Amino acid sequence: MLGRENIITAEEALDLVIRGLPERSIPSAAIPVYEALGRICADDVVAGEDLPPFPRSTVDGYAVHAADTFSASDTMPAYLNLAGEIFMGRPAGPDLPRSGAVKIPTGGMLPAGADAVVMFEHVQPLDDALIEVMKAAGPGENVIRRAEDVSRNEIILKQGHRMRPQDIGACAGLGITHIPAYRKPAVAIISTGDEIVPPETLPGPGQIRDINSYLLHGLVADEGCVPVRRGIFRDDYREIRKVIEESMHESDVILLSGGTSVGTKDMIAGIILDIGKPGLLFHGVSLKPGKPLIGGIVEGIPLFGLPGHPAAVEVCFDLFIRPVLGRLAGRKDRLERMREPVVAARLSKNIASTPGREEHIRVIVEERDDGLWAIPVISKSGLIATLVRTDGTVVVPLHTSGIQQGDKVEVRLFR
Amino acid sequence: MLGRENIITAEEALDLVIRGLPERSIPSAAIPVYEALGRICADDVVAGEDLPPFPRSTVDGYAVHAADTFSASDTMPAYLNLAGEIFMGRPAGPDLPRSGAVKIPTGGMLPAGADAVVMFEHVQPLDDALIEVMKAAGPGENVIRRAEDVSRNEIILKQGHRMRPQDIGACAGLGITHIPAYRKPAVAIISTGDEIVPPETLPGPGQIRDINSYLLHGLVADEGCVPVRRGIFRDDYREIRKVIEESMHESDVILLSGGTSVGTKDMIAGIILDIGKPGLLFHGVSLKPGKPLIGGIVEGIPLFGLPGHPAAVEVCFDLFIRPVLGRLAGRKDRLERMREPVVAARLSKNIASTPGREEHIRVIVEERDDGLWAIPVISKSGLIATLVRTDGTVVVPLHTSGIQQGDKVEVRLFR
Repeated sequence: MLGRENIITAEEALDLVIRGLPERSIPSAAIPVYEALGRICADDVVAGEDLPPFPRSTVDGYAVHAADTFSASDTMPAYLNLAGEIFMGRPAGPDLPRSGAVKIPTGGMLPAGADAVVMFEHVQPLDDALIEVMKAAGPGENVIRRAEDVSRNEIILKQGHRMRPQDIGACAGLGITHIPAYRKPAVAIISTGDEIVPPETLPGPGQIRDINSYLLHGLVADEGCVPVRRGIFRDDYREIRKVIEESMHESDVILLSGGTSVGTKDMIAGIILDIGKPGLLFHGVSLKPGKPLIGGIVEGIPLFGLPGHPAAVEVCFDLFIRPVLGRLAGRKDRLERMREPVVAARLSKNIASTPGREEHIRVIVEERDDGLWAIPVISKSGLIATLVRTDGTVVVPLHTSGIQQGDKVEVRLFR
Repeated sequence: MLGRENIITAEEALDLVIRGLPERSIPSAAIPVYEALGRICADDVVAGEDLPPFPRSTVDGYAVHAADTFSASDTMPAYLNLAGEIFMGRPAGPDLPRSGAVKIPTGGMLPAGADAVVMFEHVQPLDDALIEVMKAAGPGENVIRRAEDVSRNEIILKQGHRMRPQDIGACAGLGITHIPAYRKPAVAIISTGDEIVPPETLPGPGQIRDINSYLLHGLVADEGCVPVRRGIFRDDYREIRKVIEESMHESDVILLSGGTSVGTKDMIAGIILDIGKPGLLFHGVSLKPGKPLIGGIVEGIPLFGLPGHPAAVEVCFDLFIRPVLGRLAGRKDRLERMREPVVAARLSKNIASTPGREEHIRVIVEERDDGLWAIPVISKSGLIATLVRTDGTVVVPLHTSGIQQGDKVEVRLFR
């Protein structure tokens, strides 16, 4: 059995889990595009038609044969025969004869033959039948060609893409009313601990309410996954093993929270070892808070035994569970890390840290006259107050012994 | 009537709308805390009890009277009588007698009388009844006092706070199972235009599918509000006025999309003027794309007549509608702007811009060997392709004539 002495870095631990994830992807189904916000494309989304399906004008003006305006100028206008008017949402009508022009609105459909549009401001109508064009138009000028925007069979959204509002709009514009989307990963949340009672219960002497199930519920939902709270279980090998095995049938990830004591941690590690292959991957990480984290994979399902302190749960979720969920969800987002909100600030007081351990310090961000400051909130006790009062974290890297007051730091803001 | 010549800056336009919003806030209701992610507190959330409700140990060790360990050291240990053991989730039992010690786990409840905990590593048990303490403990050492984390009647979340996962966890820990939350603002989305057909319809000649209703549906949902698509309406004064008046009964904001032609824009401005007070606030903004934006307030409800181009709709949503929704939703978030994802990059080619107009350029963000580059995607035609291929925008400020190739820019990433 991997003992508690096998402590590895956060990077190594994540790597072990990611490499152990199964190749197979989560099932998918077609969903209505207007419900697809945040969902992940399970396949490439391909245009079924050209867009625009016909050449359109990009301005209000007159559709013409460009060649008929060749060398037209203020002093030497071209004279064209007014051959009618095109209306929005209507067919363009008959082909445009040579030396002809038709009035056209922005977005209007060009008649066959026309290959350019002259703007109103460069045209002088002489009477109902004749106009003066004071400016030469090149072929294609003020026109969107058929399929210039999107061609039939073109991939518009790649497999793994996360649907944004503009992607929903784009699909609607191409007549794509449904897209193939991966099912949202389901995450079982199992609370353990003889001392844990549900929030609606008044804790007896020595008891404490379940914070972590609710924190994890929120974190999982915020990732676009489905939280499944399984309840609170006693620190008992058989009870916990039973709920893990049941959860494996209906969940993609299993999170165990609580069990602050060394004995309980060892028991959970033991269950992961006993229950199947490959089993336990690591037991302890050189991370603060978060050192007691346990990670394993059984039959392709990642299991995490989380530390008891809510602040440690948040750090472990951020570093380990979030990337695992992204991978299982099928997300391929090359800018994902850039979208994490980070601000530069100066540290308001010295932070000491032990080299060989990555430390995550919760801070309040304060706007002062001389810029942003990060105020570390370090509390032995802070179960609740530190949780709700802080705005983000500052990371003291693995091989650093601390950060000095006034030093520039990056604050990773909570979302 | 305010004519199209009354063009104002984006900042002035937003200011007009924000100042015109009603003081009254949206209705609220109590909701279960585990469903509260992203919701806004309609009132301060107050702790109903002390946390911890009793003094707890923060380590595994022995609970003692600190005074009994005074001057204890390796060479001069204090001898204490072992008075039993405390278990997690159980009452602490009888008061600790002077010169006594009880074994206690991390999180365990201190017995009355005890005011410090000595860690295992500083204790040597001699037999079942006597221990040697090799280190002095100060009063309060390794102990969380009652109410040290949160006191009864303390405000833990302020009115206007947006619920994060950690706030949900904190409420659970304090036995707060429901919180007062503002109703999500409802946003009516009205599509207008004789040429617009629904996504499921094959457009006839000169017709185009409704992109903007779906884009707006996604943008509104992404803000945590409730999109209400009202459908597509002809460019007809009476029809559009009727659906606006109906929407005013059930929506907090009304968005009109489409109507690319000058005539339609003027008609929508006319309806906002005719329908009630104060009516039209601005007609045209010095902004590209987004110049034709119309804004008004009628009977406390903000109405926006949006430009026809989806890229312009996105810019207007970002600059005007998002702040209005945040205000109506009751959100008070001092770090909101810092959470917007922004990356620094260099511009891959010159952008020309007209001074006196704020310009928003859509870009692709590329990671190259020498860092991040922003590739402007400028297309007269791009209804769809520019929407889906770009990662964010670069803003050319109001009084600038452009940005040079290689210049540093800030890219505001799409979320």
